[in-house]
Amino acid sequence: MPRLAYLGPEGTFTEEALRLLEPDAERLPCANVPAALAAARNGEADGAVVPLENSVEGAITTTLDEFAWGEPLLITAELLLPVRFSLLARPGTEIPHIKRVYTHPAAITQSRAFVARELPDAVVVAAPSTAAAAQEVSLPGSPYDAAIAAPIAGEHYGLVELAGDIGDRTDTVTRFVKVNRPGPLPEPTGSDRTTLVVFLADDHPGALLEMLTEFSVRGVNLSRIESRPTGDGIGRYFFHFDFEGHVADARVGEAIAGLHRVCGEVRFLGSYPRADGVSPQIKRGTSDTEFAEAAHWLARVRAGRV
Amino acid sequence: MPRLAYLGPEGTFTEEALRLLEPDAERLPCANVPAALAAARNGEADGAVVPLENSVEGAITTTLDEFAWGEPLLITAELLLPVRFSLLARPGTEIPHIKRVYTHPAAITQSRAFVARELPDAVVVAAPSTAAAAQEVSLPGSPYDAAIAAPIAGEHYGLVELAGDIGDRTDTVTRFVKVNRPGPLPEPTGSDRTTLVVFLADDHPGALLEMLTEFSVRGVNLSRIESRPTGDGIGRYFFHFDFEGHVADARVGEAIAGLHRVCGEVRFLGSYPRADGVSPQIKRGTSDTEFAEAAHWLARVRAGRV
Amino acid sequence: MPRLAYLGPEGTFTEEALRLLEPDAERLPCANVPAALAAARNGEADGAVVPLENSVEGAITTTLDEFAWGEPLLITAELLLPVRFSLLARPGTEIPHIKRVYTHPAAITQSRAFVARELPDAVVVAAPSTAAAAQEVSLPGSPYDAAIAAPIAGEHYGLVELAGDIGDRTDTVTRFVKVNRPGPLPEPTGSDRTTLVVFLADDHPGALLEMLTEFSVRGVNLSRIESRPTGDGIGRYFFHFDFEGHVADARVGEAIAGLHRVCGEVRFLGSYPRADGVSPQIKRGTSDTEFAEAAHWLARVRAGRV
Amino acid sequence: MPRLAYLGPEGTFTEEALRLLEPDAERLPCANVPAALAAARNGEADGAVVPLENSVEGAITTTLDEFAWGEPLLITAELLLPVRFSLLARPGTEIPHIKRVYTHPAAITQSRAFVARELPDAVVVAAPSTAAAAQEVSLPGSPYDAAIAAPIAGEHYGLVELAGDIGDRTDTVTRFVKVNRPGPLPEPTGSDRTTLVVFLADDHPGALLEMLTEFSVRGVNLSRIESRPTGDGIGRYFFHFDFEGHVADARVGEAIAGLHRVCGEVRFLGSYPRADGVSPQIKRGTSDTEFAEAAHWLARVRAGRV
Repeated sequence: MPRLAYLGPEGTFTEEALRLLEPDAERLPCANVPAALAAARNGEADGAVVPLENSVEGAITTTLDEFAWGEPLLITAELLLPVRFSLLARPGTEIPHIKRVYTHPAAITQSRAFVARELPDAVVVAAPSTAAAAQEVSLPGSPYDAAIAAPIAGEHYGLVELAGDIGDRTDTVTRFVKVNRPGPLPEPTGSDRTTLVVFLADDHPGALLEMLTEFSVRGVNLSRIESRPTGDGIGRYFFHFDFEGHVADARVGEAIAGLHRVCGEVRFLGSYPRADGVSPQIKRGTSDTEFAEAAHWLARVRAGRV
Repeated sequence: MPRLAYLGPEGTFTEEALRLLEPDAERLPCANVPAALAAARNGEADGAVVPLENSVEGAITTTLDEFAWGEPLLITAELLLPVRFSLLARPGTEIPHIKRVYTHPAAITQSRAFVARELPDAVVVAAPSTAAAAQEVSLPGSPYDAAIAAPIAGEHYGLVELAGDIGDRTDTVTRFVKVNRPGPLPEPTGSDRTTLVVFLADDHPGALLEMLTEFSVRGVNLSRIESRPTGDGIGRYFFHFDFEGHVADARVGEAIAGLHRVCGEVRFLGSYPRADGVSPQIKRGTSDTEFAEAAHWLARVRAGRV
Repeated sequence: MPRLAYLGPEGTFTEEALRLLEPDAERLPCANVPAALAAARNGEADGAVVPLENSVEGAITTTLDEFAWGEPLLITAELLLPVRFSLLARPGTEIPHIKRVYTHPAAITQSRAFVARELPDAVVVAAPSTAAAAQEVSLPGSPYDAAIAAPIAGEHYGLVELAGDIGDRTDTVTRFVKVNRPGPLPEPTGSDRTTLVVFLADDHPGALLEMLTEFSVRGVNLSRIESRPTGDGIGRYFFHFDFEGHVADARVGEAIAGLHRVCGEVRFLGSYPRADGVSPQIKRGTSDTEFAEAAHWLARVRAGRV
Repeated sequence: MPRLAYLGPEGTFTEEALRLLEPDAERLPCANVPAALAAARNGEADGAVVPLENSVEGAITTTLDEFAWGEPLLITAELLLPVRFSLLARPGTEIPHIKRVYTHPAAITQSRAFVARELPDAVVVAAPSTAAAAQEVSLPGSPYDAAIAAPIAGEHYGLVELAGDIGDRTDTVTRFVKVNRPGPLPEPTGSDRTTLVVFLADDHPGALLEMLTEFSVRGVNLSRIESRPTGDGIGRYFFHFDFEGHVADARVGEAIAGLHRVCGEVRFLGSYPRADGVSPQIKRGTSDTEFAEAAHWLARVRAGRV
């Protein structure tokens, strides 16, 4: 039974993601993303589950930076989790009683319409996380009457769900990834994603175009690009890329070897099955078979057998 | 005397930036970036000063998103402000007395070495902002002995600087921008920057490469690219671009007109003098003179005068 | 009634092309392509009709070079003429009598199968042109029994067609163009072609890719590219381009103005209706309407009206 | 002692090229380029020497087409031969006696100034080749008084050189290549050239740009591109490419394997030492060492050893 660290405390969306990814794992809640990844790195845990991006808030920059700078870890799975907020309270509380609500600022932003409509007179106070809000509300002497949090937080802290799915948008999604210490990669499934980080050797104009061309010329489609500061001053960035395919695919291998040649440093962050199960459209001339045929032809040409 | 809103409370780095950008302006502190921009939009203020990115933390995503989605505003100036943290306390406090320190999490991260060395036994508690931390510490009954904040916060709240420049890195910089409601643009200076936001009409593979080619073919160098979620699900992004030059430059104008044609929507966010004063290298064939000559030649060709 | 020079003598395929392009023109046969173009340039004729390329033999390099180097001329029309060879002889001659055949080397190559099958014992002798061959055969004391030439040559020289359409391929086509001294261009028809010549300022690696990018970024499709030596040594070339569209089209105008900016010298050779009547597929963002909208948007942006 | 076919008759520039390339070879003159290549293909000769391009006249299209369509041959050497024309006559002839000159049309064009100045009253008649002209002049009853031809033709046919180097330009050069039946390639020398032919699978717009990108992304510089008709109608072309480097170079191998994947058919025509001895500038990231390092890195990544 693997032991997986995650962004805690108990009752976070990350815990929910971990349970879906690895129902049987032992769960080790950690105070923040760096702590969860440290547990995976130092062997305290076998791996970790952390959020990578959210369809409303964007990238979780702490995760991006930790992946880029710390000891290498490999993403081995991903999960897309719909973000469903519930209004949670101690048993016996009814909506008209609620005067003070506690939740994370992102949840405040994302459930603004519900609060305005159903709790027009309530004060909403910012908490460090939605799970921490639920935990606080569960305490007998809490100054808060309700929390906005994941349904799972209610289960954990003995709260009752007064209203479910109260977010303004019903399609908000967070993408979580499971990471492990380096080891054999997940097998290609035909519907895979690869993630990597690129540091530029020299930040010349056109460097980004050059990188994208390494992908496009091999028919590899990018699905995400994020720039992050290197720390060496405004205007110095490194890049996170997600793209279609598995590093075992010939076109992906040649593309990232090309990046490795022309960029300063490339850190491979994993190839793993896509959560959405979508298979890429293989552009003419970029299938494994076509790569193999071309390699065979090239070997003949080099031997003068034309 | 213009009235400028800014990310408050008094004593923030943003206030310091505002004072440097517009020493004579009346200053209107606001609770957060959206509030400051709202004041600029609704006329309560003539403009606003907000942070855009930091050389360690990266983009201020709230600012990026507000610029993309709200009523149009134009960036009219930028400033690069070195981030210098001070250890601030009530008069009479000495370093050995300090047991509890209050500051913003980014400051915790960035002054970790100082705290470990000089305040090994102190507890550091997270505050909503460095200025709020200073304000809290200034209150007589405060449970905190010291704040880590901008020097300007000490002046505002009557605190004494026990140690200056205590950040782990001495080269951390935040980039601030001044925005105004749409109106005549700052004149080109020969060392300008232009910022815009692009929403894709359809998110086909290669769309980003296509956009970058619109810039590169006219010799316009990008200096920053950020992707942000559109909110419509994982995998749907829009893009923030900074690039060299002024929209009055022929090459910049043609490049962004090209973007406008091939992308879904382009929002222009301003052309303004670069804070670093660097002049771009003009690639052969992309100066205003060469554009004018080519236009003249084309007019002759179209008239059959070859 | 215009007077048009052409590649003579009477009875050439070029004469046939001229008759189709301008049935009512007065015809001035010339000894070769430079002579025909000289007549158009010096006013002896109002224009000229010359071959530009053949679907089997390729470019007529004399024509390409004359267009590039001499006084400017503009292509105002094109014609695709199927190449049909006939076996022509003096009246009374029958196929079994034919011992010696006279024709141009290209015609020898292209009617090899017919000759082998029908005239296995005949000697085939090279003539300066197919029309000259017909003319020679028409002379009473000619040592030749038959000519292979255009049907029109038979009419001219009083020869009888013993066999028609004797070429090995039935789909060979020659493209002819009519040129005039510079003046108002043919109106755009929606199915136009533009031709130009580009001399590189400096022959750096990637110059050709750079040129093609100027076209592709504006959605202009090339239909022909030819490299020709500049005369300044092996490895120094200039380029002939044919592409879809009329220089009055916004996308074409911007593309060639771009070429003008980044290349050494661009010589415009005309925009004229395509002989095949094919209309180009307009890539998204490159129609005249979209160019006009983008220009309008840019003007607003530059005025700060966003 | 190898036996090499060449474009005859004796006394052509091609013979001179052959003697420089292979001084000890047995020489087999042939009537034309196809015949010389046929001799190399069918084993009558061990190889052949033929002209490929001239710095004034451009490509020798017969050679290009023969290389593309016939049985495969490999270029194993190249030579750049300055074109020097001499005025040759039977012993005893003096310039003032010369009334009729015989030579190839290209030589007529290229020695126009000399003839106008020194032989203003002479009639110049077109011959099938310069060597044939010399041969004809050498016959006792010849109607011609002099030939313009290569100096070597004078030696062959017992003529006297009345004037040397009479061309209008002194820098005209012809590039010759030696071809052999397929077999081991010449070793890389660090200053090599590779030649190939590409047929497009489908002639979509942008196909040429796609091909050039396969080269440029691996830092391979093109030195020559020629389009030739496929014979299937105007607008259908195939392409001849010369580029820097040897197919044994990693960057060249990957580039042409890329072409092979995305194009219809690629015919390799050889890698061989450059006649000009120029070494290519290797773009960052494209040396063999960098390719090997990237391949090593990729192997580690695929094994999960990051």
